[in-house]
Amino acid sequence: MADKFVSEQNLKFLFYDVFDGEALLELPLFAEHSREMFDMILQTALKLGKGLLRSCLVEMDRVPPRLENGAVIVHPLVKEILREFGEGGWISATAPVEAGGQGLPHSVNLLSAFVFAAANYSASAYPMLTTEAALLIHSFGSDELRSLYIPPMFAGRWQGTMALTEPQAGSSLSDIATSAEPTDQGYYRIRGQKIFISGSEHDGVENVVQLLLARVKGAPAGVKGISLFVVPNRRPDGSGGLVPNDVNVSGVYHKLGYRGCPITQLSLGEENDCRGWLIGEAGKGLGYMFQMMNAARIGVGAGAAAIASAAYYASLEYARERPQGRRVTEKDPLKPQIPIIEHADVKRMLLFQRAVVEGSLSLLLQCSLYYDLSHALSGEEARRCATLLELLTPVAKSYPSEMGVLSVSQGLQILGGYGYCDEFPLEQYYRDVRIHPIHEGTTGIHGITMLGRNVGMMGGRAYALFLDEVGKAVKAASAHEGLAPLASALSAALDRLTAVTSHLAGVAGEQGPDVFLSDATLYLELFGIVTIAWQWLKQACAAQAASGKNPSEESERFLQGKLCTARYFFEYELPKIEGLCTRLMKADGMCARMSPELFAD
Amino acid sequence: MADKFVSEQNLKFLFYDVFDGEALLELPLFAEHSREMFDMILQTALKLGKGLLRSCLVEMDRVPPRLENGAVIVHPLVKEILREFGEGGWISATAPVEAGGQGLPHSVNLLSAFVFAAANYSASAYPMLTTEAALLIHSFGSDELRSLYIPPMFAGRWQGTMALTEPQAGSSLSDIATSAEPTDQGYYRIRGQKIFISGSEHDGVENVVQLLLARVKGAPAGVKGISLFVVPNRRPDGSGGLVPNDVNVSGVYHKLGYRGCPITQLSLGEENDCRGWLIGEAGKGLGYMFQMMNAARIGVGAGAAAIASAAYYASLEYARERPQGRRVTEKDPLKPQIPIIEHADVKRMLLFQRAVVEGSLSLLLQCSLYYDLSHALSGEEARRCATLLELLTPVAKSYPSEMGVLSVSQGLQILGGYGYCDEFPLEQYYRDVRIHPIHEGTTGIHGITMLGRNVGMMGGRAYALFLDEVGKAVKAASAHEGLAPLASALSAALDRLTAVTSHLAGVAGEQGPDVFLSDATLYLELFGIVTIAWQWLKQACAAQAASGKNPSEESERFLQGKLCTARYFFEYELPKIEGLCTRLMKADGMCARMSPELFAD
Repeated sequence: MADKFVSEQNLKFLFYDVFDGEALLELPLFAEHSREMFDMILQTALKLGKGLLRSCLVEMDRVPPRLENGAVIVHPLVKEILREFGEGGWISATAPVEAGGQGLPHSVNLLSAFVFAAANYSASAYPMLTTEAALLIHSFGSDELRSLYIPPMFAGRWQGTMALTEPQAGSSLSDIATSAEPTDQGYYRIRGQKIFISGSEHDGVENVVQLLLARVKGAPAGVKGISLFVVPNRRPDGSGGLVPNDVNVSGVYHKLGYRGCPITQLSLGEENDCRGWLIGEAGKGLGYMFQMMNAARIGVGAGAAAIASAAYYASLEYARERPQGRRVTEKDPLKPQIPIIEHADVKRMLLFQRAVVEGSLSLLLQCSLYYDLSHALSGEEARRCATLLELLTPVAKSYPSEMGVLSVSQGLQILGGYGYCDEFPLEQYYRDVRIHPIHEGTTGIHGITMLGRNVGMMGGRAYALFLDEVGKAVKAASAHEGLAPLASALSAALDRLTAVTSHLAGVAGEQGPDVFLSDATLYLELFGIVTIAWQWLKQACAAQAASGKNPSEESERFLQGKLCTARYFFEYELPKIEGLCTRLMKADGMCARMSPELFAD
Repeated sequence: MADKFVSEQNLKFLFYDVFDGEALLELPLFAEHSREMFDMILQTALKLGKGLLRSCLVEMDRVPPRLENGAVIVHPLVKEILREFGEGGWISATAPVEAGGQGLPHSVNLLSAFVFAAANYSASAYPMLTTEAALLIHSFGSDELRSLYIPPMFAGRWQGTMALTEPQAGSSLSDIATSAEPTDQGYYRIRGQKIFISGSEHDGVENVVQLLLARVKGAPAGVKGISLFVVPNRRPDGSGGLVPNDVNVSGVYHKLGYRGCPITQLSLGEENDCRGWLIGEAGKGLGYMFQMMNAARIGVGAGAAAIASAAYYASLEYARERPQGRRVTEKDPLKPQIPIIEHADVKRMLLFQRAVVEGSLSLLLQCSLYYDLSHALSGEEARRCATLLELLTPVAKSYPSEMGVLSVSQGLQILGGYGYCDEFPLEQYYRDVRIHPIHEGTTGIHGITMLGRNVGMMGGRAYALFLDEVGKAVKAASAHEGLAPLASALSAALDRLTAVTSHLAGVAGEQGPDVFLSDATLYLELFGIVTIAWQWLKQACAAQAASGKNPSEESERFLQGKLCTARYFFEYELPKIEGLCTRLMKADGMCARMSPELFAD
């Protein structure tokens, strides 16, 4: 097992050098924190990741959760992990102080979340879901719900979930059918089925709290009839105890990967005794849920990039240690073989892995900072950050997910036959990472959100803000000798993105939404490449600046590696937009118009 | 489990309509065959695939081979499969009649091999390896070896393998170290270790025959010192019995997929009693082995495309049956949901799957026909076909393998969460197909072969023959109304490929092989896309022609689907060459020049 799964140096470089994370401390909202505290948090996260989480990575995969007499048995360390995360304040880290949290910036928290997910993605999902579920109760729940549910969740004794999907309503949330019948007791009777719910029941906690979408009886069809409920698997009996709440697990999925975390089918209210408590106002459930969904989307992007990070370091270690072949100019078979890291194609594969990992992480950190600033600032500046975060969320979810799969696959390839065998960890990472383009909205759904909603948001002002942001990076990089070619390449790419965007806007007007959205997934891919190029340009600028400040020899190698990876991205990844632009400028709606009958055979 | 895994109509369309396979019957070598016989062979293969092979697809995955007291226990049906394949003449089908075979054209055999691999790839590997091992003995072995080994192999009682890889010699075959010490008994004493050997020991057969590369003691270093041996796991004792030959299984790999076929580590000659028999001349082993390796490369390409075929039909079935969401213009949530096949993005994903599957199969059939014609014809025409086959073998191995992985992944995506679960077959296909870019030479190795050897072969004449072949298809398509745009797009793409090729040839001269070969993998990718575009243009021509001949309504839908998929390839896949050409024209040797130290962190 490769020891290294994440680079502390890179996390610090991104947070402090690229994003000047220390500047957060000047804002009143974060004034209580300090750089020392941020560093200590990262240190502790690394220790926890290397120790407890890493210790059960393989075993949680090999012995997946199982259903026994209605109970879901998970790895015995899950209980310890959740207790540790509760006691260490990890679950409540980003919660406001008045909610019992530490008010940690999301950007700082992203670093530790990344470490945990890179160490053991399945294990990291339990506390992450609990945090977001508790924060949702905090944002919109009554004082009673808050005081009853949040403390045991923050303590790691109760698990939180998001319970959206139903057999007939996966990507189409407007079709949610789980029903909630009002009573005069302050609760609703819940009845229905939920599927694909992560962490929705397990023996690592005393209780599980579903943040569940349902439809109050008589509510209108579609999204306007959806309400949000707290539905515990065991409900508090009013005297400190818990009694069963008629939530039953009807199945545990057998999955390709991400096996350490149970995903179940739930049957609610089979005995008509499942009680749910409304959060906020009826009919506004989906709107509330978007808080958790958007957080989870950043979390999924981070999870994908984190698994890709672990894969990158495993591939790197192998490439350094495995002797095979000789330089192409070396014809003497008696000369010793060289480590494969000396082969150009292996370096190319490693650069691809690194470019995806560090480019993705940079974007995720960018998004987390937008989140922090949208809360720490006010007025126009806060709105600007909130808008940029909203605009970029589909990219932050989808680019790391789609490219994470390819990055891990490339990492597996570096190991050759060993990559295909379970004695090396690539095989597991390859299975684990494949969940990410699927959960929290498939890539196709995010493509439609991006093109159909986000880029046109606020009459195009959101997109204009994005142009400004990228423009600033281009300008900054133009001043650095050596980075001007990258800056002008990004500027040209941005022009092409804008040309495609305008062209498609015209198509929308002339030919309607079907043709307009026909290639939305490709548009999202294009947007993603340009966005990550922007992030690489920012990193290159920061690396160039840091390199000028007499760094240690080791740091200088890291910084030159950064610059090299940035150049890799511009040389190998950015050109991929050419084919995408060619296709998108066609905008003939070929796939929208095609009759499904032509698949007949 | 989806029933359909392959399209009979497509196999016939390719063989008869695109490639005029019936014309083979006019050649003396194949004059004994008939169209009726070809059709019957395909029918029988489909029956065997749907029945015996398909029946154990899932179980062979779930209960993989295990090592027990030195024995490798495989699924009980493996024995029945091999017996059936032996009795049915499948193992010997392509062998010359004088070798006990039926002299079936390789192109016809490819169709049945494709059916078997699509039905159950792991199961299909056993007989395929046996065929190629027996043919290798037939080509270069003594009469004694032929008569002793080939009959039980063709009967499916003995398994054949290719035993090349060693712990220190995977991609670098020149480093093979297994030793062969001559005796005066007509055999050699073999000593060494082999790893990653498919089918190298199992209880489905009475014996396993390793076609093994080793180095005669005192032989020169490098490839010139490599010889080929027959090394049975149990050697004939001269009186019809078998005795152990000191070949021991030291481990069975636990693999991501392809689990139905055991891949083992072998220890040979631990007790100094492992006997091997030389095939042909000492020192020429690698040259001989290329017969089996090249056949296996086409087989691997076919295996990848076949798994992708099974995945395509599983995704198609799901997409037709799964209701989810509404048209983007439909705002009424009370309207029923539509099957997801009606969504543009799902059609795009299905077209991608189909484009990869049928484009790859077309190329594989093209290569098999080159093989057949290189044997059935003589003189210049035979050499032309042999050269084209040699030129295109890296593409025929790598394009289906690399794109098969992406195609199956896209198919999994269509099923959303269900694609990630083992109740649907995509999860297994996704694991199974990932072996193909690795075994029989990684994609990186084939890239170097393609750019570093093949395109420059015979002073560029091989490449010129390829230009002629593609040119013929362009000319034929230009005459078809409606296909002219595709023809001119292919012509332009071919010009770009030629420009890149010339440019790189210049780089080789000026900057040496390291820089020249730095992006060889991308060059192979570029070559692959252009090659498959050629195959799609041929298919489009044939479909257009067939469509003009009053086909049945069902056939017409199939033909229109072909045309639509061809257009998909030209609209969505061919533009990918733009970014590749941009990168390849740079030819700055960035990855070759980069210091591995820059990965330091």
